[in-house]
Amino acid sequence: MINLASDNVVGASREILDAIAAANAAPEASYGADRFSREAEARLGQIFERDVKVFLVATGTAANALALSAFTPPWGAVFCHEESHIADDECGAPEMYTAGAKLVGIRGEAGKFSTHDLEHALKRFPRGVTKAVQPSLVSLSQVTECGTLYTLDEIKALAAVAKRYDIAVHMDGARFANALLSLGCSPAEMTWKSGVDVLSFGATKNGALACEAVIFFDPKKAQDFDFRRKRSGHTLSKGRLFGAQLLAYLEKDLWLANARHANAMAKQLSDGFAKMNSIRMPWKTEANEVFAIMPKRVSDAFSQAKIFAAPWYKESISLPHNEHIKEDEHFLRFVTSYATKAEEIETILKTARAA
Amino acid sequence: MINLASDNVVGASREILDAIAAANAAPEASYGADRFSREAEARLGQIFERDVKVFLVATGTAANALALSAFTPPWGAVFCHEESHIADDECGAPEMYTAGAKLVGIRGEAGKFSTHDLEHALKRFPRGVTKAVQPSLVSLSQVTECGTLYTLDEIKALAAVAKRYDIAVHMDGARFANALLSLGCSPAEMTWKSGVDVLSFGATKNGALACEAVIFFDPKKAQDFDFRRKRSGHTLSKGRLFGAQLLAYLEKDLWLANARHANAMAKQLSDGFAKMNSIRMPWKTEANEVFAIMPKRVSDAFSQAKIFAAPWYKESISLPHNEHIKEDEHFLRFVTSYATKAEEIETILKTARAA
Amino acid sequence: MINLASDNVVGASREILDAIAAANAAPEASYGADRFSREAEARLGQIFERDVKVFLVATGTAANALALSAFTPPWGAVFCHEESHIADDECGAPEMYTAGAKLVGIRGEAGKFSTHDLEHALKRFPRGVTKAVQPSLVSLSQVTECGTLYTLDEIKALAAVAKRYDIAVHMDGARFANALLSLGCSPAEMTWKSGVDVLSFGATKNGALACEAVIFFDPKKAQDFDFRRKRSGHTLSKGRLFGAQLLAYLEKDLWLANARHANAMAKQLSDGFAKMNSIRMPWKTEANEVFAIMPKRVSDAFSQAKIFAAPWYKESISLPHNEHIKEDEHFLRFVTSYATKAEEIETILKTARAA
Amino acid sequence: MINLASDNVVGASREILDAIAAANAAPEASYGADRFSREAEARLGQIFERDVKVFLVATGTAANALALSAFTPPWGAVFCHEESHIADDECGAPEMYTAGAKLVGIRGEAGKFSTHDLEHALKRFPRGVTKAVQPSLVSLSQVTECGTLYTLDEIKALAAVAKRYDIAVHMDGARFANALLSLGCSPAEMTWKSGVDVLSFGATKNGALACEAVIFFDPKKAQDFDFRRKRSGHTLSKGRLFGAQLLAYLEKDLWLANARHANAMAKQLSDGFAKMNSIRMPWKTEANEVFAIMPKRVSDAFSQAKIFAAPWYKESISLPHNEHIKEDEHFLRFVTSYATKAEEIETILKTARAA
Repeated sequence: MINLASDNVVGASREILDAIAAANAAPEASYGADRFSREAEARLGQIFERDVKVFLVATGTAANALALSAFTPPWGAVFCHEESHIADDECGAPEMYTAGAKLVGIRGEAGKFSTHDLEHALKRFPRGVTKAVQPSLVSLSQVTECGTLYTLDEIKALAAVAKRYDIAVHMDGARFANALLSLGCSPAEMTWKSGVDVLSFGATKNGALACEAVIFFDPKKAQDFDFRRKRSGHTLSKGRLFGAQLLAYLEKDLWLANARHANAMAKQLSDGFAKMNSIRMPWKTEANEVFAIMPKRVSDAFSQAKIFAAPWYKESISLPHNEHIKEDEHFLRFVTSYATKAEEIETILKTARAA
Repeated sequence: MINLASDNVVGASREILDAIAAANAAPEASYGADRFSREAEARLGQIFERDVKVFLVATGTAANALALSAFTPPWGAVFCHEESHIADDECGAPEMYTAGAKLVGIRGEAGKFSTHDLEHALKRFPRGVTKAVQPSLVSLSQVTECGTLYTLDEIKALAAVAKRYDIAVHMDGARFANALLSLGCSPAEMTWKSGVDVLSFGATKNGALACEAVIFFDPKKAQDFDFRRKRSGHTLSKGRLFGAQLLAYLEKDLWLANARHANAMAKQLSDGFAKMNSIRMPWKTEANEVFAIMPKRVSDAFSQAKIFAAPWYKESISLPHNEHIKEDEHFLRFVTSYATKAEEIETILKTARAA
Repeated sequence: MINLASDNVVGASREILDAIAAANAAPEASYGADRFSREAEARLGQIFERDVKVFLVATGTAANALALSAFTPPWGAVFCHEESHIADDECGAPEMYTAGAKLVGIRGEAGKFSTHDLEHALKRFPRGVTKAVQPSLVSLSQVTECGTLYTLDEIKALAAVAKRYDIAVHMDGARFANALLSLGCSPAEMTWKSGVDVLSFGATKNGALACEAVIFFDPKKAQDFDFRRKRSGHTLSKGRLFGAQLLAYLEKDLWLANARHANAMAKQLSDGFAKMNSIRMPWKTEANEVFAIMPKRVSDAFSQAKIFAAPWYKESISLPHNEHIKEDEHFLRFVTSYATKAEEIETILKTARAA
Repeated sequence: MINLASDNVVGASREILDAIAAANAAPEASYGADRFSREAEARLGQIFERDVKVFLVATGTAANALALSAFTPPWGAVFCHEESHIADDECGAPEMYTAGAKLVGIRGEAGKFSTHDLEHALKRFPRGVTKAVQPSLVSLSQVTECGTLYTLDEIKALAAVAKRYDIAVHMDGARFANALLSLGCSPAEMTWKSGVDVLSFGATKNGALACEAVIFFDPKKAQDFDFRRKRSGHTLSKGRLFGAQLLAYLEKDLWLANARHANAMAKQLSDGFAKMNSIRMPWKTEANEVFAIMPKRVSDAFSQAKIFAAPWYKESISLPHNEHIKEDEHFLRFVTSYATKAEEIETILKTARAA
């Protein structure tokens, strides 16, 4: 069986499991005050080249919803791509955590939106007009739902619009490491140096078991966050579970090694698909996700070979204007991970070619 | 001064003021148990030709938000036009009252959406898929934000889609009477006979001072509503204020007379504008709202003549595809009411012609 | 029929009805921007001897819940008497409006609590301890649920504790005028000069039809309040309805005249009851409420004479330690109003004496 | 160092760590659909002798808040001990998850309340009275905040009151195993056979790393729970982390062995303290918690010997009537765990005797 339905179908990196076991021995302070969590915060400060305030939680949904809630009142508007994870895939968690803020979906090709689109959306909710929810923050997904990336210049330009409208910038970095390596910049450059205020820094999809970090680049904005996290039931009593994972994730650049491998595997798959006439890829492969439209006979061949990908023809994904899924075609998403093997990619390509 | 910025800039009909005064004398049961409110419910039952459960509140925002909250869990999705009042003009009240349900905005010309658009939106949130908010109800604005109407057939078709997806149908009838007269059907036909489950029945914009009714066509669905209303602070202790208004509103068909007049005034204005080459109206005048694009010299003439309309070039309103506001043009909304005088309309038209 | 079940069973003062009618004529700005509402704010500024920010709403529940929400995060604690109106009689409105803050009920005789009780409660929720909700404000009812009053010294002492713990002070003044006259102090003295930050200033129970004012003594704290009010559906489009009521209420000291009369009627009733051996009053009559324990034969005589009071033996009211309702006794609350007549009080007393 | 401040200062049982590692290998379905979680549900069904619906989450706060939210509307009342964990130690999580339901604190000795106290509280919120929040469920802590237990008869009697008032029964079983062994009954007897509808079944404090189960004894009541969990960010993508822990926890009765040991250690400590004149224990040691009042010289000796317990003189804990902490005394809580060693207990006792 080869399962590339998502990068969360695999377990954790061995190093991370070992770290959990190693952190188990001695008594530790409860509820996030353990030394592992504190060290992870310090380590992230080094990586991001400034003082940061870090909160570890178990899921990306919690990280995103909590991060957003720190920057918007209940009558606020959160601007995001209309097909973003926070808009479509978290069962309303942002609304729950913000006590009812409105997610304003912005359309845009390949999972991204432009400064023009953002400004158009912002103008719909004028500051100080009582009947309108008030612009509070913009959320960028890096990697997007289409597996694509914002360039540094694009991030900076969007953040500049946000600053002009006096709203904050959130980055949903569930696949942060994959994006970082692809852009080839520093963590600081992809975030606060480009105008990002708060980051959901994902680890789970890239080798951790269950660990995401909410990173505040301005610690003052994190003042109430301990209460927010506790009140939502996301403060572990045995916080070492999170701290140990994140330390191991960052140690010896495991996070980068894992993501580098996943990206390489995606490129290998994408390059292979690109050579096949019968397969079309609506979006560029910029991280560890490959989206492919193929004849049913190919996807059937995959099923028979126990190769699993995620059926992706969702109503919620806008294909490029000139693209269209035909009756006898299937649309699949393949997500590679730290654990994907080059041989598995070869098997997939071979199977496709044979079909 | 002639002020047609909205139909809420005028006071109340004399009959309604008199009814408030008349209801003042004797002691009455508090908190909605007064006989005026109960009689208003009975009267609405006759008008709608079935048993209804009625709750009176002070504002359209409260009526809509409360009505929606009775039909959706916090993880529910409410489908509505993306420029509808509940989506854009209530500062997030639906989100507050539903504890965070998601309003899914559907695009569509002239403030309306089609069955196709609705179904497309519904498919984005598949039933039982945990990450997706769950379809709960669809909300139709009758009159729409563009002053247009759904035909009976359109309402029935949309409601049929809703039923097929097992969700409820809400009608935002802030200008219910204006719509009703324009369609020339019965209240029952425009609502439950076409598949509407719950109605925000507006009176304030049509001659009341502050009174809207939430009408449940299936009383069973209203079981918890008393708690919802109380908990939101919308249960008046001296409930006779609402009851008296609504009784007077319905008495001798005042509501219909008021709306008939308002519609006629709008038609007179619209017919006049239609004869002017310099003025374009992007949408048909189907109720008591006239939207007009005009050279600035015309709108300036209005200002000088103390004729007030609402500047309507909102980013949030999608004009028809072939329509575009030029640099030297203004976009204004005129809303007529029970109190608008034919002479006032004439003055407006004369002023426009002169400019 | 004589109905003293509550001070909200009667209609409005004639002056207030007239003011509503008088405000009806001309077009007015919508949504609280009308000149009546603005004048009412200015007038309250004079009465309270400082700049105030005022928001008018329809119910005491809305006034209280909105006021509290401006001073507490969702993880905050609101300290109040455990039998206060906000705790027991608003169906959870404060929890709804604050998105889940916790009302911490404090016990205390006669509807009041002491500085000692308040401090004890505050210590249960230590500042900065994540698992504890964080103290945000204390709410004092003036008049209390037992018809009693805090003295100026008591208010000052409680507010001093609040300031020491860095929390705000709310006053629920649903019967503000009745309390004010009884204490014989100025509005400023009973509020901000004693440390009150925000006041629910009631008018409905004292002659208005539906109007309560939320008064901020520090306008900076009111910054977001327009959004809060709008989002909860409490911003009237025809805001003149509120503004006109409040102006008339304050004009020529109608509010004081109404309350003075209500208090006098209560005193007359209380003095009469005090002379009867068979009737006990558990609490002093300090405003316009009289609580009386009586043999059933007396309350039966009342019923037969169509004299209505509210049955008050609630589990939720703690009687004084040495007090106890016997099997053959009834506990009734009589609330006098601006409309109560001296002859009615005489009839009640006569009926009691006869029984 | 000996740290008995809480049973969550220690790591996980070796068996549980091993199970996490063992579950890591193969790809697995995401988001709770993994076979480990499904097997854990089946296993709990056997243990509780009926079909159950089980949801695994990371913290007790999440388990409790989610469980409560499934049984109360936002205008509901949750009855609990006024010093219970849900009332005092979860930063308002129940209010957040229930969208504002009210926790009604009931007083009572030793962390417990009686049927009389419960009924008194229930009567304060009469069914159908709109101003009152509506009774929804009662929550029992087994073990209580004072380390004490409800007997089976007490649970049954309280549940009988609940049924009579048509409300549900929740059990906060953060230390379920400790209670079970102490009572010497079956899991079924302590829960659904006694009238419990939903259980927070704790594992974290008893040897797991981060795993609690919400167990519904009537699967129908769990219908929406998947959405509730997802929306709160508590659905792990790599759900095997939870499933593996719980399976190992139940395997070969590890949970019982762990709790048996912890209880024995507490008894050893308690028995030792009981023989010392200078130490008083306000409550019986019925599970794995020992509360002790001692001269400061004893607690100082503990500190010097690096023996850590939790300072327990909280304002929020009501001591027995005849009990009082003197100036020169300290009040400490010792919590034993699966990892506590008999020698450690001996060291503590020796240190106390020496001081």
